[in-house]
Amino acid sequence: MSWRTLEYQDGKVTFIDQTLLPGEVKYLTTSDYRVIVEAIKKLRVRGAPAIGIAAAFGVVLGAYEFQGSSDLPGQLGKIIAELAGTRPTAVNLFWALNRQRKILESKRDRPKKDLIAALEKEAMAIAAADERINRKIGEFGAGLLRDGMGILTHCNAGALATGAYGTALAAIRVAVERGKRISVYADETRPLLQGARLTVWEMMRENIPVTLITDNMAAAVMGLGKIQAVIVGADRITANGDVANKIGTYGVAILAKEHKIPFYVAAPLSTIDLSLKTGAEIPIEERAPEEVTSFGGIMIAPAGVKVFNPAFDVTPAKYVTAIISEYGVARGDWENTFKEWVNKSGQESGARSQ
Amino acid sequence: MSWRTLEYQDGKVTFIDQTLLPGEVKYLTTSDYRVIVEAIKKLRVRGAPAIGIAAAFGVVLGAYEFQGSSDLPGQLGKIIAELAGTRPTAVNLFWALNRQRKILESKRDRPKKDLIAALEKEAMAIAAADERINRKIGEFGAGLLRDGMGILTHCNAGALATGAYGTALAAIRVAVERGKRISVYADETRPLLQGARLTVWEMMRENIPVTLITDNMAAAVMGLGKIQAVIVGADRITANGDVANKIGTYGVAILAKEHKIPFYVAAPLSTIDLSLKTGAEIPIEERAPEEVTSFGGIMIAPAGVKVFNPAFDVTPAKYVTAIISEYGVARGDWENTFKEWVNKSGQESGARSQ
Repeated sequence: MSWRTLEYQDGKVTFIDQTLLPGEVKYLTTSDYRVIVEAIKKLRVRGAPAIGIAAAFGVVLGAYEFQGSSDLPGQLGKIIAELAGTRPTAVNLFWALNRQRKILESKRDRPKKDLIAALEKEAMAIAAADERINRKIGEFGAGLLRDGMGILTHCNAGALATGAYGTALAAIRVAVERGKRISVYADETRPLLQGARLTVWEMMRENIPVTLITDNMAAAVMGLGKIQAVIVGADRITANGDVANKIGTYGVAILAKEHKIPFYVAAPLSTIDLSLKTGAEIPIEERAPEEVTSFGGIMIAPAGVKVFNPAFDVTPAKYVTAIISEYGVARGDWENTFKEWVNKSGQESGARSQ
Repeated sequence: MSWRTLEYQDGKVTFIDQTLLPGEVKYLTTSDYRVIVEAIKKLRVRGAPAIGIAAAFGVVLGAYEFQGSSDLPGQLGKIIAELAGTRPTAVNLFWALNRQRKILESKRDRPKKDLIAALEKEAMAIAAADERINRKIGEFGAGLLRDGMGILTHCNAGALATGAYGTALAAIRVAVERGKRISVYADETRPLLQGARLTVWEMMRENIPVTLITDNMAAAVMGLGKIQAVIVGADRITANGDVANKIGTYGVAILAKEHKIPFYVAAPLSTIDLSLKTGAEIPIEERAPEEVTSFGGIMIAPAGVKVFNPAFDVTPAKYVTAIISEYGVARGDWENTFKEWVNKSGQESGARSQ
């Protein structure tokens, strides 16, 4: 790829401001964790895995800033809490911050420079692993996609949402690498148009055929026989297989079922939250009405209208054909399969740390 | 209501430019049928019944313009063809123009002023009848809505889409008149946002509670139990009960079925096209990609992206709980019920002409 979503070097994070795409490709470089907090809130950095990576580096930036503090661990605790308060739904954020919190706990009595080095190493490990993980998700996912398929995707679960490759789009990328002809249909994904602005941009830059539709055209396109599979990312998956993802995903899943089209979810293990039994327990972020009522400063609805603007919805497991992680493809028996994956993951990290 | 969608007086048509709503309430007045042609193409006047009324008056404007012509009937034939070429899906356009064509045939050898007077009378009859018809649709429709219901509607089947009251929104208006508490949920209806711009505007002007959502939130709102009925208009209904309506209607119908929510269609008899057996025969208008890729001059997708932009979709009859016309409520046995309605309509117009 000719661009990078987020990079870290020498105490500085550089990231694409995704709110300006596709009109402008602008990178921001910062050594201030507050810029990371703002970037996550404003969706300059978005996508569950990318949010996790950004937050992990945000802790590192904070550690450098407060290296002269008499209470660096205390400061870092506050910074972690501030980063955790940015967005409630994607669990990868909390997963990544928990990893940093564990480093903080285990090294809090060590010299500051050791603590900082350990936090930096952990963030870099999270970012590096994400790239490997996405490649694996892409390989498992590509196995589900056949030559000639039309694939509908919603929002952006691409390289922009992750460290590299993406999750749902990784499956498409690997399928195309393997010589399969794939036609992508991208829901524009109102209100913030991540499909129109980001997914289409990613696909066009790699010459993967893509057709843009408004969200409300998905049913018509399925009815016309143009879609053979749906693949989306996820922000949180609960033990029973329920999937929180960008608003509109639930509707697409129902439409897929009605048209007998498989509905696939691609996400790293870090998106699976075994502490929650069902999707009903997932906090759903509601965002400002202006995201719906105006665009580019132009009002598109009468002033003062009441708006409901949930950023995510929950797709019950019964609509999910398969969940693809870096450990394979689950088709039902969700909790047991997820636990197997967690065990494998523990063995691997054990093997690595030996 | 404090505004009128379209009015005719002394050889001039005055209409609200709906493309400017809600930001600007601007009326255009014209004696030029070409302005009507352009207004229909550009959706300054839109909604199946309103298009029919506008086209009927367009013929009248043409008749006045060419009253000095040596071949007024020939000129009118061309004008009717031009009006018929504006938009392909809504059948009310062709129905209204056929009524004018019949006047033209029956009066072509009469003095020009008699022909013009007859065309003018017919257009005024179409407009006046639409108001009566919508009131009846509203009364039948209101009978299906209960106190406390949340009602989802898509696009705008309101007063702006008709001579007065609307079709789907007439049912809501009459229910509210009768003291029922109704909460309206309005899909914004991409790409041209008729829900956000027009339905919300109409409801707010009458203090009917309305909540704006993006199209892709409909499933979530249903899943949360906020919707007890869906009611939409139609652009063409075929003999078997299939319904062409604004793009996205088909998806909403599937979501309603999945949530066991009734899906109602409100439309005048003139929207029912018994010459077509099924919805597969309905021509579906595809519109310019720029409607999807830009808003208010701002590009919201990468330049050159391929777009699919059908303006309508077809909801198969199996998803339709009931169709409400000025003759009552049909629940299945579509073709026979429609034929009964046509018979009643013939008896009424016979009674009126005696």
